[in-house]
Amino acid sequence: VSNGAGEFELIDWFRRRAQPHSRLSVGIGDDAAVLTWLRSNEALVTVDMLMQGVHFTIPPATLPQVGRKALAVNLSDIAAMGGRPIAAVVALALPRTHSVAAEFAGAASGDSIGRGLFEGIDELADQFDVAVAGGDTNSWDGPLVVCVTVLGEVAGHGPIRRSDAQVGDWIFVTGSFGGSLAGKHLTFEPRVREALVLQQQIALHAMTDVSDGLSQDLYHILEESSVGAVVFEEAIPISDAAHMASDGRTPLEHALEDGEDFELLFTVAPQDGRQLVTNPPFETKLTWIGEIVAGSGCQLRDRLGRLSLLPRRGWEHSL
Amino acid sequence: VSNGAGEFELIDWFRRRAQPHSRLSVGIGDDAAVLTWLRSNEALVTVDMLMQGVHFTIPPATLPQVGRKALAVNLSDIAAMGGRPIAAVVALALPRTHSVAAEFAGAASGDSIGRGLFEGIDELADQFDVAVAGGDTNSWDGPLVVCVTVLGEVAGHGPIRRSDAQVGDWIFVTGSFGGSLAGKHLTFEPRVREALVLQQQIALHAMTDVSDGLSQDLYHILEESSVGAVVFEEAIPISDAAHMASDGRTPLEHALEDGEDFELLFTVAPQDGRQLVTNPPFETKLTWIGEIVAGSGCQLRDRLGRLSLLPRRGWEHSL
Repeated sequence: VSNGAGEFELIDWFRRRAQPHSRLSVGIGDDAAVLTWLRSNEALVTVDMLMQGVHFTIPPATLPQVGRKALAVNLSDIAAMGGRPIAAVVALALPRTHSVAAEFAGAASGDSIGRGLFEGIDELADQFDVAVAGGDTNSWDGPLVVCVTVLGEVAGHGPIRRSDAQVGDWIFVTGSFGGSLAGKHLTFEPRVREALVLQQQIALHAMTDVSDGLSQDLYHILEESSVGAVVFEEAIPISDAAHMASDGRTPLEHALEDGEDFELLFTVAPQDGRQLVTNPPFETKLTWIGEIVAGSGCQLRDRLGRLSLLPRRGWEHSL
Repeated sequence: VSNGAGEFELIDWFRRRAQPHSRLSVGIGDDAAVLTWLRSNEALVTVDMLMQGVHFTIPPATLPQVGRKALAVNLSDIAAMGGRPIAAVVALALPRTHSVAAEFAGAASGDSIGRGLFEGIDELADQFDVAVAGGDTNSWDGPLVVCVTVLGEVAGHGPIRRSDAQVGDWIFVTGSFGGSLAGKHLTFEPRVREALVLQQQIALHAMTDVSDGLSQDLYHILEESSVGAVVFEEAIPISDAAHMASDGRTPLEHALEDGEDFELLFTVAPQDGRQLVTNPPFETKLTWIGEIVAGSGCQLRDRLGRLSLLPRRGWEHSL
């Protein structure tokens, strides 16, 4: 039973702030959002839940950064399917006034937490022309939880799965890896445009985004495709943050295992690979890091040609 | 960084258990799910987050009941738009082994909590031919959070909004109201089939589902449509649970204010209303409870014809 102000005021605020979008015929404020779905016979859908204390802490993260990340990780998933994001819905568990979690969020009320999150969501949504279509607003005495679902359309040659890597394929990655928790996990650019350019210019075989760690996510592709791989150790693009870490693990280990890089990892036929190496299709760094081989598992090949098993390590929630 | 078993094992279990669906070309286990979207140019999308201690407690709720409810509330929203649900994605925050929340869930681990939830989700999804398309699995030391997003297609005359009530319309509800927390909120049947039958047989004007309370949700329709209403006090269908409550509030107050009834509340032109009264289109109880009038606000009319203002009370999250 209600106390008058609260949830509905915040929803009204979202509704006034949310920008109109050509694909959105019913937005925030009804039982469900209505999207026009003209260009494609297929719909992509992905969801990610971010929890305070697990995926972010405030500080160092700000509320707009948390909102931005909650949308960005989903845009990264749509990019990883080779798709175009269209719309997002946002479900919130907001810490109630005076709760410990609200205090850590640096906000006096769930209302101001909601508005702070929306700023980051809305800015990124605008940047990628994504409609903020609706959501669900709740409050409790627990930590902040933000759950974003994104719908997308299939582009180019259709959805790019993890299971279509072929023996002989070249393996590529965008960007660099490791040490994301030092900052990149809050500010990364989801590789939506890069994925759409790749869809236009070549025939992508398998693709995923690196969220669990380069090693872990490569193993996902290998297992789904029933193939193996050789990765060129010296080719792995290692981020500055991985070089700066001083916890006893090498920069390479950070690059292979840290996760939350949100870069694209994909395979293409050798002729397409040569084209990408010769004529990089965008400014974002693109690196040829290995080859798909018959069999299973992944070998790391060093400068001297020696092979060792790539350890499968990365982020996984223990249950 | 991972400890080996955990999240991925549970996801594999979901993947093996999830049933194939004609509309699902890529299901659990890739970056995003892919749905075929042939019949309609419009997509409906709705999301609801259920939090342990707010929307359910365990006990008395069981894990399958919680999973079922998390899907059912979304099916109710799709029904309220006059749509047909197609697919669901599920994001989970699972209490970690030995956490207090896990203990209250009566489960030894997040893994068994996930499986328990899935049972209830899967059974209801199967009943309404909804594809369980994917999700996101996380664990923490906090309470259980279940966030379900449902996609649907528009049926019949298109999406039924809250804003299309017309002066002179008759107001109808399915089912009966009040006391839902005594049990119905965990076991209700979302009115999907009823909404689709109504779409076929008549021209629905405004519709919503009653989640916040009959009074509150009727006010939502009135405000969105810029109209008023007169509700016939003696016509309000009051549930047995509302009659059995003994907290000093009358059964009528329970029926008008309790919320979580998940019944349809809709308006139609008088000639369609007469048809519904004369030839009820389904076995589910259908009651003519009032009329839309010019102006604003809602009057309650008693047996003697006396009018009083219907208090706007119901569920709202205070922030």
